[in-house]
Amino acid sequence: MKAALIIIGNEILSGRTKDKNLAYLAEWLNEIGIQLYEVRVIRDDEDEIIDCVNLLRKKFDYVFTTGGIGPTHDDITTESIAKAFDVELETNPDALKILQGYYKKGDLNEARLKMTLLPIGAELVENPVTKAPGFKMDNVFVMAGIPSIMQGMLEGARVFLETGTKMSSKSIDVFMPESFVATELSQIQDNYLNVEIGSYPFNKDGKFGTSLVMRSTDLAALDRCEIEVAEMIKKLG
Amino acid sequence: MKAALIIIGNEILSGRTKDKNLAYLAEWLNEIGIQLYEVRVIRDDEDEIIDCVNLLRKKFDYVFTTGGIGPTHDDITTESIAKAFDVELETNPDALKILQGYYKKGDLNEARLKMTLLPIGAELVENPVTKAPGFKMDNVFVMAGIPSIMQGMLEGARVFLETGTKMSSKSIDVFMPESFVATELSQIQDNYLNVEIGSYPFNKDGKFGTSLVMRSTDLAALDRCEIEVAEMIKKLG
Repeated sequence: MKAALIIIGNEILSGRTKDKNLAYLAEWLNEIGIQLYEVRVIRDDEDEIIDCVNLLRKKFDYVFTTGGIGPTHDDITTESIAKAFDVELETNPDALKILQGYYKKGDLNEARLKMTLLPIGAELVENPVTKAPGFKMDNVFVMAGIPSIMQGMLEGARVFLETGTKMSSKSIDVFMPESFVATELSQIQDNYLNVEIGSYPFNKDGKFGTSLVMRSTDLAALDRCEIEVAEMIKKLG
Repeated sequence: MKAALIIIGNEILSGRTKDKNLAYLAEWLNEIGIQLYEVRVIRDDEDEIIDCVNLLRKKFDYVFTTGGIGPTHDDITTESIAKAFDVELETNPDALKILQGYYKKGDLNEARLKMTLLPIGAELVENPVTKAPGFKMDNVFVMAGIPSIMQGMLEGARVFLETGTKMSSKSIDVFMPESFVATELSQIQDNYLNVEIGSYPFNKDGKFGTSLVMRSTDLAALDRCEIEVAEMIKKLG
């Protein structure tokens, strides 16, 4: 099962806001056996959103979007998604009921009512934090950009997701440069085609080293691979 | 001047490594009048790298890539860039000289020599941190993924960059929900088409509010817009 994430928002591309959703989503998805395969960060631009959603929803099992579903003029994701699916917006009666129950009479102003206007055919994705729901169109999940709300919505999205086999990982840290393990590590990689071996240099309190990370859905292969990497390190001293 | 960033690396997509390069690059580019318009995070996959680079280098003035130029088997960016430009790899004599000067004799092993194999036609981008250089092919800048090295390489890339007009920004924080300012803010946006107005909810020590952010290359328009937004807030109480 493969997924893509579309992060929508000028504030991410300007550097003003640091995205925290990518890493969270990646780990959350992996727990239920879905791999994040691609991420795009795009502007609050209708054409870009439409093109990006329509491309990625054909390419991946699931597409998640974050950002642009609030009450202000710069929140254009919902309308763009409707256009991507070539449907109109309508007041979603369930979304309306949720906001009517949450806000005091008089507080449910025009701007907030905008958040009940969803594409025809949308299924609600619960928002336990601020109530205004996210939604799902086919295999596309449209969520808020604020991390706490996005994380809440993901729990709401879970019921819709078919899960796969979890990618497990092993990691061994060695205090030697990458180049010292490169040749042997590459040979091990050739012997374990269903294990993804990565090599990442680190600096821990001034001590330089390399993290050797192995990832696979095949636990037996992962165990054997780990043993070979450990033996390689012993040999290299 | 518009730029795109391609973040290459399975470790970002698995959530293991949190990217810090996007926000840094965005702010650094803005200082010299280049806007980051799009970011893609892709796997260490040759075809994906080739397609992505070839698409974005036609679409934007500059493309920056991070990740995958180290000495191990999972570092496939350099070779993929050569294929994207349809050229062979060759030992770059300047890169070789740099590494010969940096490493003690005997320490310049095969894996490290791999980092001197660059696409024919590549121009070096200096790496003040660990010396193995990044490089430039046409409008594509190929840099390391480790933030400190990437930041050093950006300084090396600066000489190649044509600069534009800096995007300036103003920000006003108000302690009211987004929906309270939505209607009036949208009217102001309609009057300032060359100012990008964004509205971002925040939670500061338990106090909820909204940041109103205005961005423009037109300083006079930005000043006038700020005054109107401030007046709007006064009116709304």
